[in-house]
Amino acid sequence: MDLYKLTASEVVARTKAGELTVEDYARSLLSRIKERDEAVKAWAYLNPDYVIEQAKKLDQVAPEARGPLHGVAVAVKDVIYTKDMPTQFNSPIYENDAPQVDAASIIILRHAGALILGKTTTTEFAATTTGPKTSNAHDPKRTPGGSSSGSGAAVGDLQAPIGLGTQTGGSTIRPGSFNGIYALKPTWNAISREGQKIYSLLFDTLGLYARSVADLELLADVFEIHDDEPANSSFQIQGASFAICKTMAWDHVGDGTAKAMDKAKALLESHGATVQEISLPEHLKDLPAWHATVLNSEGRTAFLPDYRKAKDKLAPFLHAHVENTHGISRAQQVGAWDNIAAARPQVDKLLGQYDAVIVPSVPDEAPTGLESTGSAAFNLIWTALHTPVVNVPGFQGANKMPIGLSLVGPRYHDRKLLSVSKEVGEIFEAEGGWTRKNI
Amino acid sequence: MDLYKLTASEVVARTKAGELTVEDYARSLLSRIKERDEAVKAWAYLNPDYVIEQAKKLDQVAPEARGPLHGVAVAVKDVIYTKDMPTQFNSPIYENDAPQVDAASIIILRHAGALILGKTTTTEFAATTTGPKTSNAHDPKRTPGGSSSGSGAAVGDLQAPIGLGTQTGGSTIRPGSFNGIYALKPTWNAISREGQKIYSLLFDTLGLYARSVADLELLADVFEIHDDEPANSSFQIQGASFAICKTMAWDHVGDGTAKAMDKAKALLESHGATVQEISLPEHLKDLPAWHATVLNSEGRTAFLPDYRKAKDKLAPFLHAHVENTHGISRAQQVGAWDNIAAARPQVDKLLGQYDAVIVPSVPDEAPTGLESTGSAAFNLIWTALHTPVVNVPGFQGANKMPIGLSLVGPRYHDRKLLSVSKEVGEIFEAEGGWTRKNI
Repeated sequence: MDLYKLTASEVVARTKAGELTVEDYARSLLSRIKERDEAVKAWAYLNPDYVIEQAKKLDQVAPEARGPLHGVAVAVKDVIYTKDMPTQFNSPIYENDAPQVDAASIIILRHAGALILGKTTTTEFAATTTGPKTSNAHDPKRTPGGSSSGSGAAVGDLQAPIGLGTQTGGSTIRPGSFNGIYALKPTWNAISREGQKIYSLLFDTLGLYARSVADLELLADVFEIHDDEPANSSFQIQGASFAICKTMAWDHVGDGTAKAMDKAKALLESHGATVQEISLPEHLKDLPAWHATVLNSEGRTAFLPDYRKAKDKLAPFLHAHVENTHGISRAQQVGAWDNIAAARPQVDKLLGQYDAVIVPSVPDEAPTGLESTGSAAFNLIWTALHTPVVNVPGFQGANKMPIGLSLVGPRYHDRKLLSVSKEVGEIFEAEGGWTRKNI
Repeated sequence: MDLYKLTASEVVARTKAGELTVEDYARSLLSRIKERDEAVKAWAYLNPDYVIEQAKKLDQVAPEARGPLHGVAVAVKDVIYTKDMPTQFNSPIYENDAPQVDAASIIILRHAGALILGKTTTTEFAATTTGPKTSNAHDPKRTPGGSSSGSGAAVGDLQAPIGLGTQTGGSTIRPGSFNGIYALKPTWNAISREGQKIYSLLFDTLGLYARSVADLELLADVFEIHDDEPANSSFQIQGASFAICKTMAWDHVGDGTAKAMDKAKALLESHGATVQEISLPEHLKDLPAWHATVLNSEGRTAFLPDYRKAKDKLAPFLHAHVENTHGISRAQQVGAWDNIAAARPQVDKLLGQYDAVIVPSVPDEAPTGLESTGSAAFNLIWTALHTPVVNVPGFQGANKMPIGLSLVGPRYHDRKLLSVSKEVGEIFEAEGGWTRKNI
């Protein structure tokens, strides 16, 4: 097996057993990247010599001093500060900008022994839906989704086992679905967002990519994401209780996701689970509008500095935030804050009645073209509600591109959700219809 | 008049009229600082040569290209990134650390023509109540309050006309009261907190210090803090409607503030206003406990990187956050989030019935000793509620040290609150009993 195909958990096991050096592993990833970069273009910054230098340093760490992610390579979205690499936000304002500071997530990852590979592409400030140069891991003519385009594509294309993304609307889950990988948007503020460009303080969340749930659990350990009750390690689909929720965004659904939802229900039932169809309460039908109001209003605050600095280099979409072209009043802003806040405990209660609730991750498989990163319609409500979300791959669309579904649970039930996602993922990946061709 | 005594508005007017060079002004401030630094010790970093260099550059800017804060000197709390100066958080972990990046607030201030003077002292990460080396502007044996100790003392001591602070509990308003100056904690997220150390995402707020309300209004313009309705520029105390609210924290009150509250009521009434005594609803009595729960829980996330990096160099108080020694469950954390969120619109509605509601800023005048920065008991509820708060000076305690009172209003009524504070401040400063001796 080529080393670049290893999951993070496998890398940890092999380096621990003395069967793998970080340098050999890094060289394998770098040659995979070299081979595939022309097609995928996932990287905003990558310095192979520096990667090898860091890998060699990790190999010199005494076995007893090694961290729980020793040698695990991480692709970092280029809206997250790394003290040894530029951070440019895909914005001409910050071209070649390189603040000497690590984001909170990077400090924690480095301390755990991770190898920071490089910076991955993003839409401008992780805020627009205009795609960067990056292609989908499974079809160069299709978008990888966004805004965490590069991290989603890199992990999907076996260029890194772990990727960091962010999500304010659907920026982690959408690329997860489009590239056929697992994605975790944890409970809001479960991981520090320090050192990550602000768009909306209330919505921005660090997101994680991997090709297995075990890898996401490894990361959750390192970031100390714990539920009040430890997750049931012997959770079984047989006898489990799920719900399917089409949500108020169902108008956006395409054929691919509609079929995946049906198939998911049938598969879980065939494995002995009960699957009930539920709706969100009618009075929450404006959640997407509230999300938009908050996004525009908080974006007004967040992009004022960049607007002042270099308005002409800022996307018109972000001008509109700062200039408040939608004419959102402070009363509307505060009302949206309060309405969403009131919804959170109500939705938690509903979600808590099931082992997990299954909702769409995307309208359909990744669309063709790199100009637009697709729709976040199915993600933004969960971002606003602060709930954990796991994208589980396994289905496919009309063009055999991957489609994932989202499992959601109440706030701070991330570990339970991961443990359920692990069993669900085994079924979806085995019987959902899509199979990863590049491994 | 010595130039260092000028307010920001006066500096703007004089530089605009060609009557003042930024260099002359800066030299006056630097000599004031030189004279007073041994007593006050407000600065964590200050490089006089660099200040003069920056001042000279500002003098070279063509009149038509000058910003609305041209030449206004700003003291910056050392938890806010400045690309040309170290940012050290009063933490040995970050000693001599100097990330090459400006916080959002600094970008906006520089673009408006401000002169960034230097970095002011803070308690460790703006999180503990252990005082830095700094003394109160009006008595070297007394605390300036915290955590924005240096900015509060510097503005109180005429070493800078404007200071930046932050507030998560009472870190802006308390030093404002103790040092006899105006302080504005704006509505949460009205100013971007990007580039300012995170403690609690839901509570952290950038705070502003000045020696006049006009200066705070000047800053509010630059930061584009606007209400839905423009503030009534002809607001008068005669016929105005105020409330006095002792809050559930009244047990903490000392003689100085109790007398100031009575005197405030009498003064406003004597000028023709009605002043009603109100209470917060009984079901909000646990607001201080909810604030503490959120602080501990969000601190658990915020300080994990520093804890991992150098536990031995982190205050025990912050260890306790990360180790969750108070045993706060996720259910309690989420419950506190939701309870506070539900309280916000209720309290807004109550506050909106008056031109302003007057509440204590502090239990009493600044206590003696530099070890502890005092109590935030009267501030933390307003921080949690996201309302704007203005500290208005004018009263004094048993030892003739300044005592201010807080004016609060509903979220995003910052400009109305400032316009009311201006008129209230004229009365409190003229008739409250305390007079600034250093001007």
